[in-house]
Amino acid sequence: MRLVFASDSFKGSLSSREVARILSEEAVRTFPGAECVSLPMADGGEGTLEAVVAATGAERRTCLVHGPLGDARRASWALLPNGAALVEMAEASGLTLVAPGRRDPLRASTYGTGQLVEAALDAGAHDVTLAIGGSATNDGGMGMLRALGARFLDASGVELEGTGADLAQVSSIDLTGLDPRARQASFHVMCDVDNPLLGPRGATRVFGPQKGAGEEALEELEAGMGNFARVTARTLGQDLSGLPGAGAAGGLGFALAAFLGARLEPGVQRVLDLVGFNEAVQGASLCVTGEGHLDAQTAGGKVVRGVAERCASAGVPCVALVGGADVDVADGAGLGLAAVVPLPTAPMDLDEALDGADQLCHLAAERLFSLVAVGRGL
Amino acid sequence: MRLVFASDSFKGSLSSREVARILSEEAVRTFPGAECVSLPMADGGEGTLEAVVAATGAERRTCLVHGPLGDARRASWALLPNGAALVEMAEASGLTLVAPGRRDPLRASTYGTGQLVEAALDAGAHDVTLAIGGSATNDGGMGMLRALGARFLDASGVELEGTGADLAQVSSIDLTGLDPRARQASFHVMCDVDNPLLGPRGATRVFGPQKGAGEEALEELEAGMGNFARVTARTLGQDLSGLPGAGAAGGLGFALAAFLGARLEPGVQRVLDLVGFNEAVQGASLCVTGEGHLDAQTAGGKVVRGVAERCASAGVPCVALVGGADVDVADGAGLGLAAVVPLPTAPMDLDEALDGADQLCHLAAERLFSLVAVGRGL
Repeated sequence: MRLVFASDSFKGSLSSREVARILSEEAVRTFPGAECVSLPMADGGEGTLEAVVAATGAERRTCLVHGPLGDARRASWALLPNGAALVEMAEASGLTLVAPGRRDPLRASTYGTGQLVEAALDAGAHDVTLAIGGSATNDGGMGMLRALGARFLDASGVELEGTGADLAQVSSIDLTGLDPRARQASFHVMCDVDNPLLGPRGATRVFGPQKGAGEEALEELEAGMGNFARVTARTLGQDLSGLPGAGAAGGLGFALAAFLGARLEPGVQRVLDLVGFNEAVQGASLCVTGEGHLDAQTAGGKVVRGVAERCASAGVPCVALVGGADVDVADGAGLGLAAVVPLPTAPMDLDEALDGADQLCHLAAERLFSLVAVGRGL
Repeated sequence: MRLVFASDSFKGSLSSREVARILSEEAVRTFPGAECVSLPMADGGEGTLEAVVAATGAERRTCLVHGPLGDARRASWALLPNGAALVEMAEASGLTLVAPGRRDPLRASTYGTGQLVEAALDAGAHDVTLAIGGSATNDGGMGMLRALGARFLDASGVELEGTGADLAQVSSIDLTGLDPRARQASFHVMCDVDNPLLGPRGATRVFGPQKGAGEEALEELEAGMGNFARVTARTLGQDLSGLPGAGAAGGLGFALAAFLGARLEPGVQRVLDLVGFNEAVQGASLCVTGEGHLDAQTAGGKVVRGVAERCASAGVPCVALVGGADVDVADGAGLGLAAVVPLPTAPMDLDEALDGADQLCHLAAERLFSLVAVGRGL
């Protein structure tokens, strides 16, 4: 009997690793001989690096990089046992690395993210996945490309630093120095937005304000991004500025797709691939997924949906353990779940549920396995 | 595959009959071929008559009786298919039948309850069970006995009415007119208190105040009950005033035990016998019980405990569906339950849970059966 545990974190209370541990503990109490496979999950956002490290036994490596505003900082990336690499942009270029009063996408750069990619290539990775949520930047990915050897020049042929403010100055792009290993490697971008690079739904207009750009800065950045897209199209002979997801992470999605041939995929699908979900679930008796709150919106339930779909393909029943579920999805049927098991043992407020999450999770897991055991005995 | 549903009501939201109906509906959705046996349960208190009627298909009969203060009112009792009768004292002599301002145990009488017993004997019942919770009376059961033909006389040989105020006046008891069918029938009293008839833990001191007796009335009633106990002991040649439960229902427990040889039993045990639980659960695949709130106190969980115990004896797994459970009993292990399934789908307040009880119960039942089905498929 093999059981696969692939839950998201319960935001605000339990990490995906903790949920997996609790499920394993309760499973072996009910089914002492069961083989438990823990694959802590994430959706490509916060916690993705931690989850993949926990699920795969990846090696977490650290190096010195430039932060969003050029300050030196240590950042982690992960080298998976199969030689693939996972880079979390927020480690080097994340919005939370900059104090709210200092946030400025005109000055911020993705250079540090490029340094992490370079470190992965140095370690021999031929397959690099980037989780690009929560960026502080709106530089069109120039900083990242510059760290890999590309050069962005103004009309006078002077090399630019690659910040948001430089977007408008780009006149030509010199790719002769681009790391040849970057050209040969496969790049995957975890991307759950479909915004294009430019316009009212583009990177600047939609995500710029939350990164600290005022109206004037937004005008400058949008105009600059338009210039950068034109120069890029001229340089590469194709225009990917309209690609869904090109506007992710201040245009980093665009740069990775256009210059490095990256494939943009929903984060959870890529995480599932990285942790080897399909191989693990093949022939399993049961899979338990989960998340903090299950609702009908696309915003929630990415992990649960993704796991449930793959379980359905593999013919393995899938149950979700959740902090809570909206009643209209609480039967799990619309998500392809055999059942949804909520944590609360009684009417209680959210704070009580969050404070007692560890114990409630143990109890819910025990409940789940006990009922399965009852059925198994029939 | 036979499934037995034996839940208590969820106080304040769902009757035991409704819970059983919901369980049956969800069970056949998950297990289309399953045989479902619905045995709505009660613990001998409020709702016992309704539950037993629903569980057994008993015939509900109605007759005109004296209310607690002598006013005429229609009251129900139940004739079970096997010829046994169930009488709920609260139907004729209940505290809720008297407006709060008019409650007066000096004047109240159990006469109407005796009339219900008489109606059961008239219908040929040889086995009469009385649920005696919620009485308005403190008459030592004299009213009930008088309705069956006993006569209580004062020192002048004048017959007394049999109210609480008459307790002190009883000088002799004439049983020559006592209905011979009452002497021959088996009586069972559903009794979950162990109070004796007299003293600080007795009927008057413990339960008198909530029936409307002030300090002066309590003194009078206690003294009267002492007199009644002495005269009864002299008449019958044995003193049962110390019997645990003699103090139930204002001494009705005492009268039934002493004069009619009634056996006092925990309510839930008697309900289980009346609904034929042992026969129904024999060879069943699963039993689902339940109640509004499961806690570690003896006050709650009578039905769940009773059902779980009998399931354990029969070797049938038992699961409880509950509105809520205290975390220290939420694994059900201490109660012999295979699992406890709480209704809430998410953190929510009690009012929300009560308002949505029907839908939440459906979802919880579906969850329960779905997980059992997952196990069955392994």
